Amino acid sequence: MASFNLLLLPGDGIGPEVNVEVEKLVRWLDQAGVAKFEIEKDLVGGSAYDAHGVSITEEAMARAQAADAVLFGAVGGPKWDSVPYEVRPEAGLLRLRKDLGLFANLRPAICYPALAEASSLKRELVEGLDIMIVRELTGGVYFGEPKEIVTLENGEKRAVDTQLYTTHEVERIARVAFDLAAKRNNRVASAEKRNVMRTGVLWHEVVSRVHREEFAGAALEHVLADNCAMQLVRNPKQYDVIVTDNLFGDILSDVAAMLTGSLGMLPSASLGAEDPATGKRKALYEPVHGSAPDIAGKGMANPIAMIGSLGMALRYSFGLGDAADKLDLAIANVLGAGLRTRDIAGPGANAVSTSEMGDAIIAEM
Amino acid sequence: MASFNLLLLPGDGIGPEVNVEVEKLVRWLDQAGVAKFEIEKDLVGGSAYDAHGVSITEEAMARAQAADAVLFGAVGGPKWDSVPYEVRPEAGLLRLRKDLGLFANLRPAICYPALAEASSLKRELVEGLDIMIVRELTGGVYFGEPKEIVTLENGEKRAVDTQLYTTHEVERIARVAFDLAAKRNNRVASAEKRNVMRTGVLWHEVVSRVHREEFAGAALEHVLADNCAMQLVRNPKQYDVIVTDNLFGDILSDVAAMLTGSLGMLPSASLGAEDPATGKRKALYEPVHGSAPDIAGKGMANPIAMIGSLGMALRYSFGLGDAADKLDLAIANVLGAGLRTRDIAGPGANAVSTSEMGDAIIAEM
Ligand SMILES: CC(C)[C@H](C(=O)O)[C@@H](O)C(=O)O
Ligand SMILES: CC(C)[C@H](C(=O)O)[C@@H](O)C(=O)O
Repeated sequence: MASFNLLLLPGDGIGPEVNVEVEKLVRWLDQAGVAKFEIEKDLVGGSAYDAHGVSITEEAMARAQAADAVLFGAVGGPKWDSVPYEVRPEAGLLRLRKDLGLFANLRPAICYPALAEASSLKRELVEGLDIMIVRELTGGVYFGEPKEIVTLENGEKRAVDTQLYTTHEVERIARVAFDLAAKRNNRVASAEKRNVMRTGVLWHEVVSRVHREEFAGAALEHVLADNCAMQLVRNPKQYDVIVTDNLFGDILSDVAAMLTGSLGMLPSASLGAEDPATGKRKALYEPVHGSAPDIAGKGMANPIAMIGSLGMALRYSFGLGDAADKLDLAIANVLGAGLRTRDIAGPGANAVSTSEMGDAIIAEM
Repeated sequence: MASFNLLLLPGDGIGPEVNVEVEKLVRWLDQAGVAKFEIEKDLVGGSAYDAHGVSITEEAMARAQAADAVLFGAVGGPKWDSVPYEVRPEAGLLRLRKDLGLFANLRPAICYPALAEASSLKRELVEGLDIMIVRELTGGVYFGEPKEIVTLENGEKRAVDTQLYTTHEVERIARVAFDLAAKRNNRVASAEKRNVMRTGVLWHEVVSRVHREEFAGAALEHVLADNCAMQLVRNPKQYDVIVTDNLFGDILSDVAAMLTGSLGMLPSASLGAEDPATGKRKALYEPVHGSAPDIAGKGMANPIAMIGSLGMALRYSFGLGDAADKLDLAIANVLGAGLRTRDIAGPGANAVSTSEMGDAIIAEM
C-alpha cells in the first residue's frame, strides 16, 4: 500500500480546531486502508513565536521539505500585532511558500448550491459559480528586493517594496493555468495592470506568447486587474480560470471566495515544480479563510475548507482521486442533509459544532 | 461675479459625448449668472496620440496648470493597445495627476435609492450605501523608480515596478481622509498589506500617529487590503471613509463603485495641496467609469458621472456649494421622474439618450 508523509501545521486562531477534524479523517483513511499516512505535527505563526520566538523553526522547515504534503491551518491574530516584522506570524507562511518553491496557488471559488442564499450577491448571479483562480505565489511584490524602511536625513521614513517578475516566472504559472483550463472550459482570463506597471506589460506579453505557442486552442482574454475585480462583482460566471500575480491574486481570490457565500468551505493548493527525477512536487494545502481569532476556541469554526484541503492533497499529491471524489461526495451529502456550522447556518437556524461537522463527514465516508 | 477658467479634456471613447453634456451645463450656468466660465478644450489620451503622437501635449499641460479646474472624460481603448508604453493613452492621465500634484483622489460610492435594484448585491446590503474612498494618487507603485523591463544575459526579461511611500505622503493623505470623515460619520478605515509590505507597515504607523495626534475624536480601524475587498462585498455599509494607497485604491474604489449598481453615475475629484498664498488647490474631476469603447459614439452613455464631476468642481474648486446642491437635486429629480440611460434602465425598460439625459438635467435646473 502506498505510504505518505503528511506534516500538519495547525497554526493560530481556529487553525488548531479545524486541524483536529482533518487529523481524525487522515487516521480514518489510514485505518480504512486507503493508504498509509505518517503524520507529523509542528508549530507555525504566532504559536511558533510564543514557543520559540520565530514564526517557524528550522526543524519545522526541514520537516516541510521532507513531507509529501503539508496541511496548513491559518496564522495571525491581534495578539501578535506588535511583534517584530521579521517574526510576525505571516512570515512563517511566506517562508514555507518561498523555500518550498510553491509558485502555483490554486484557489477554487465554488458556490455550493445549498449555500447560494448565503452570498451577498443575488442568487442567480452566483448559483453554479465555479472559478479557478491561479495565483503566482513566490514572486512579485511579496518577495522582491529592496524591501525596507529607511530613515532619511530629515527624519522622515521612506518605505519600499519591489514588484518583480521574470519571463520564466510568468511562463510557468501561465502553463499551470492553461493546463488546468484544458480540464475545465478551456477559458483563461489573465489579469494585470499593464497600463500602469511594467510587470503588467511583461505579464501580458509572456502569457500571450505561451498561449500562442503552446495552448492556441484555449480562449485567452486579457483584463486589467481593477476591471477584473469589478467584473467579479458584476457577473462572476463569465470566468473559468483567472491567472494573475501574487498581489492581485491575493485580492481577487478573496473577492471571488466571498462572492460564493462559502468562504468557510473553500480549500486551496500551493504547488511547486515537478521534480523531473521523481515526478513529485512539493505541496502545501490550506483553507482560504484566515485564523478568525474572534471565534477561535469556541467550536464554531467550519472545518470543511480544511477537510477540502486534504481532498486537494489526495488528488494532487497522493494520486488518490477516487478517495478525493468520495470525500467531495461526503461533504455534499452532509450539506444536503442540512448540517450547517454557524457561518453557513443563516440567521436563527440551528448550527452544529466543528467536531460534529467533522464526525458527520467521516460517518458519511 | 466670480470668474473661473475651466479646461475640458474629453479624451477617448464615450469621453467626448458625455463632455458635450457637461459643456452645455457650464454654458447654462454662465448664462444663468451663477458665475463666469472661460472654457478651453484640448486632447488627451488616444485622441492626443492620433493627432500629435503623444498622450498629452506640452500646451495642454500648460493649460491644465493654469486652469482653475480640469474636467477629464476618459482615456484608452483597443485602438491604442499596441502604441509604445510611454505614449499609451493612460500616460496622459498619469502625467496630469503627477505634474499637477493631485495626491488626493476622492471617490464617493453612493447607491442611488432609485437604482438599488441595479446592483448585483442584495438590495438591503446596498440601499443607502454612502462610502467615500480616499485614494493616494501620486505615489506608490504608479510612479516609483526603478520602473523598467531589462533583458538579462540569458535572453530572459525582468520587469520591475517600485512601490514607494514616504512619511509625508502618508501624512497628507491621512489628513484629507480624517478631515472628510469629520464632515460625515467620523469613521476611517485604513487599508494596507502591512503583513507583507514594508510600505504597509509605514502606512499603518503614520496613519495611527496622525489619528492619535490630530484626529483622536475619529474612529480609526486598520484593515488588510484583501480583507477590505472581501468586507466591501460582504457588508459595504460598515464603512464611512476608506483611506488607502494608489494601487489598492484603484481596485477597492472600482469594487465599491460596482457594488452601488450606479457605475455610470459616480464622479470623482483629484485634488492637490492648498497653495498657502492663494488658498487655491489644483484640481481635476472625472467620472469613475472608463472610456467604454464598445458603446462609444452611440449616444447611449450615461452623462451623470461627468455632470456630477462638474458638481464636485462647483463644490471643491469654485466655492459654489449652492449651485452644487441644486445640481445634485436636479439629478435626483430627473432620476425620480423615471429617466434612465441604457446602463441603468433595467432589462426591457425604455432608455433615453446621452443628450436627452443632459437636457433633462438642465431643464430641471
Ligand atoms: C496571510 C497572508 C500573508 C496571505 C497573503 O497575503 O498571501 C493571505 O492573505 C493569503 O491570501 O494567503
Ligand atoms: C486609466 C488608469 C491609468 C487609471 C488608474 O489605474 O489609476 C484608472 O483605472 C483609474 O482608476 O483612474
